[in-house]
Amino acid sequence: MDARVSCSNPSAVAASFDLGAWSRHHLECVEQALSQWIAPDAPAGLGAAMRYAVLDGGKRLRPLLVLAASEAVAGLPEAALRAACAVELIHAYSLVHDDMPCMDNDVLRRGKPTVHVQFGQAQALLAGDALQALAFELLVPEGAGIPDHVQAALCRLLARAAGAEGMAGGQAIDLASVGVALDEAQLRQMHRLKTGALLQASVAMGAACGCADAAAQAALARYGAALGLAFQVVDDILDVTQDSATLGKTAGKDAASDKPTYVSLLGLQRARAHADELLGQALAALAASGLSDTRALQALAEMVVNRSN
Amino acid sequence: MDARVSCSNPSAVAASFDLGAWSRHHLECVEQALSQWIAPDAPAGLGAAMRYAVLDGGKRLRPLLVLAASEAVAGLPEAALRAACAVELIHAYSLVHDDMPCMDNDVLRRGKPTVHVQFGQAQALLAGDALQALAFELLVPEGAGIPDHVQAALCRLLARAAGAEGMAGGQAIDLASVGVALDEAQLRQMHRLKTGALLQASVAMGAACGCADAAAQAALARYGAALGLAFQVVDDILDVTQDSATLGKTAGKDAASDKPTYVSLLGLQRARAHADELLGQALAALAASGLSDTRALQALAEMVVNRSN
Repeated sequence: MDARVSCSNPSAVAASFDLGAWSRHHLECVEQALSQWIAPDAPAGLGAAMRYAVLDGGKRLRPLLVLAASEAVAGLPEAALRAACAVELIHAYSLVHDDMPCMDNDVLRRGKPTVHVQFGQAQALLAGDALQALAFELLVPEGAGIPDHVQAALCRLLARAAGAEGMAGGQAIDLASVGVALDEAQLRQMHRLKTGALLQASVAMGAACGCADAAAQAALARYGAALGLAFQVVDDILDVTQDSATLGKTAGKDAASDKPTYVSLLGLQRARAHADELLGQALAALAASGLSDTRALQALAEMVVNRSN
Repeated sequence: MDARVSCSNPSAVAASFDLGAWSRHHLECVEQALSQWIAPDAPAGLGAAMRYAVLDGGKRLRPLLVLAASEAVAGLPEAALRAACAVELIHAYSLVHDDMPCMDNDVLRRGKPTVHVQFGQAQALLAGDALQALAFELLVPEGAGIPDHVQAALCRLLARAAGAEGMAGGQAIDLASVGVALDEAQLRQMHRLKTGALLQASVAMGAACGCADAAAQAALARYGAALGLAFQVVDDILDVTQDSATLGKTAGKDAASDKPTYVSLLGLQRARAHADELLGQALAALAASGLSDTRALQALAEMVVNRSN
């Protein structure tokens, strides 16, 4: 847990912004750090299950948001990298538990058998539990030069976003909503918690690694909220417009399981317009933040709305 | 999360020590705080499942250890109460997940249907996940007057004790050990992680609420380690010597499921002697701690070894 992984920012000096290059560099840091921090030798195969659940897969949107927000406020790189990995561990554990037979009963994830298929349900349950604990452990290292108030703030943001008033609460609403007609406010509330809370926390945690003023923090919070909702609207659109191969997961699943979605509620065209509107809100928040370089955050928001998988 | 619950210490001025009175007073504080901090209105029944899993039950040994250790080092009462509740939430979530069909498949706990029987497996899984997040959230309140370095230290101790190198790792070894002949070192390692880590963390977290010197901290760590092992040895003894009604859970379960225990390894008489020896180690550590009042810790260790359920 004392390992240091440095992650400088080559794009900061570039005149124009290349999201691809920026992402590749930062993803390399994140992958290396995750691999270092998820010990393979955890007892009785638990480490193997944890690594399987996290490594070699995923778009890593949340870590990239943490790192982009941290760079926008000149945050501590070590704190940002730890926060980036912690958020990804929470996301990864939620997928492991979500895929289990008592939840979504998914057998494939990122083109591989899901953790419970590969390691058994009990080990999947434990691996998810251990990943959540590890997420918090990463945020409170001794001797890494991260001020105590930053460590505490990062834990606070992550715990709130992961718990009953965040991700877990959103999943509970999701469970209860199968076959139920939600209105737009209820659907928004579900997604605000289920996926929005952790996306928004990613931005807030990045911001907590530096010392943005209150106005900048409020602007980044608005950015995170809009981006979190936009992510889900686009997810719902892709579920009906893309095939499974492009998505890397089962397409048409929401409709098949009679889950309410933005598309079922608004129709495809209005859902698309809503996503664009949310992108506009996110970009407007950045423009009003007073921060000098928000190009990575801007490019990530555009990528979220215009992605094809 | 901003609620304050005060918990003064009436026993500190008493000449002799009455563990019963001390425990009753402190348990009242803990119950009240837990009830206040586990919000009933978490979405879609999640709050109800979380409260069901935690409230009105359990010996609360871990919270009492936190509070006793904190008092021994004149720790901050608010920090200690939060730490006490956080440790109990981790313990409670581990029971919820442990009871699930894919793990121990238990239908009764503390005389009530287990959480998954009462609320369904998916809700039980989510409730456990949300309880873990809440445990960390309790440790990092804003505006509660707990110094940042104490908040960070408490998170660090709890995360390590709960994760792959602690409780979750011990559970993974336990899973893998059914029907396997373990030697004493392997059995000790399993229990050191599965139950010992959280018991030891309870003592260490209590100590982290004050400012014990290094020698006192080391002594408390030895106390916690000995007590953690003693707890498990006694658990194994009670599993074969008590009936289910006395235990409040299914007796003889370890033997029936062919799990290795201290009794199956050492025999009843040597297991009993081993528990007494560990109690001696715990009390010797307290005596060497240099702390002026360790009566509650002492009485709790005696209670752990001499309990009948």
